[in-house]
Amino acid sequence: MQTISVKTHQHCEMIDITSSISDILSSLGLSEGWITAFVPHTTAAVTINENADPDVLHDLLFRLDQLSPRDLPEFRHAEGNSDAHIKTSLIGSSVTIMVENGRLCLGTWQGIFFCEFDGPRNRKLWIKTNP
Amino acid sequence: MQTISVKTHQHCEMIDITSSISDILSSLGLSEGWITAFVPHTTAAVTINENADPDVLHDLLFRLDQLSPRDLPEFRHAEGNSDAHIKTSLIGSSVTIMVENGRLCLGTWQGIFFCEFDGPRNRKLWIKTNP
Amino acid sequence: MQTISVKTHQHCEMIDITSSISDILSSLGLSEGWITAFVPHTTAAVTINENADPDVLHDLLFRLDQLSPRDLPEFRHAEGNSDAHIKTSLIGSSVTIMVENGRLCLGTWQGIFFCEFDGPRNRKLWIKTNP
Repeated sequence: MQTISVKTHQHCEMIDITSSISDILSSLGLSEGWITAFVPHTTAAVTINENADPDVLHDLLFRLDQLSPRDLPEFRHAEGNSDAHIKTSLIGSSVTIMVENGRLCLGTWQGIFFCEFDGPRNRKLWIKTNP
Repeated sequence: MQTISVKTHQHCEMIDITSSISDILSSLGLSEGWITAFVPHTTAAVTINENADPDVLHDLLFRLDQLSPRDLPEFRHAEGNSDAHIKTSLIGSSVTIMVENGRLCLGTWQGIFFCEFDGPRNRKLWIKTNP
Repeated sequence: MQTISVKTHQHCEMIDITSSISDILSSLGLSEGWITAFVPHTTAAVTINENADPDVLHDLLFRLDQLSPRDLPEFRHAEGNSDAHIKTSLIGSSVTIMVENGRLCLGTWQGIFFCEFDGPRNRKLWIKTNP
């Protein structure tokens, strides 16, 4: 297992980690199989989405804030970050990407994004290949 | 890796691709392991849900439209399909199904659905088995 | 493939199944690889989130009820549980966890939760390791 460290700077933020994962893939020399990125936090997630126009990320984070707002009066969790826990389960804690000819199999516009929902913090992802 | 082509006819649409994936599984002759369907687009997704009553799909798409509406005034992405990008990250870009005795392991009512969120378009899914 | 049986007692409920999965891992003696939990139902899901403060689960279920309410007038599905089908596709039907040194690779605060969205019922999860 390899670890990617991610330093986030905003409360909510999507950070393109595609090249970091691609670099790990190259260093391992895996030609054919799978690579998984797993987020070992409960207020951060990982997703695949467009890596061309940063406005897509803005819009995604904006709407997620509406879907999971901070400080609903019914929330009980004393840490005050229930919104981040909810976003995490909506988006998910891992992605698995196919590998062929030593390269990540991603569509033309796809990138892999670490999703910070309760930053800024120092975060990490665990990366593991199969086989 | 195999490719499934999907032609969508609606702006938003869920298409049952279970038999296409099952056919690929049969053609590959995999007896035991895993099969993954990956969507290489950023405005389409894949999910597992009920394949018996089409009204379930209607209700799911209807509510998703409310959770991720088109044309919020705060949206910045110029293509005007931010709703589709948001739905994609909410639903997810891949599913992995167990294989035993040469068959997909799905529950009685489960089917695998390609989710079009910005159609109609010609789409594809990548299918890969393990081992 | 192994099966975990889960008896739910509420209409909506999150049940920590981490130790059940860990026990299966121990019984199989897998040292290094992957373990997947798959829910073969269409009104229940599985997710990873905080296992320390039960209030996180309360808040997550509370907000999911708002994101996917029962009995919208536009719903057509006659069984009346469209809300549960929608939640299932938002949260997802499976999680895959890395295994190293015979142990589940989870972050400090992470647990694996079966999500009942249309209970109470007798449910099951399918567990399979790789290799």
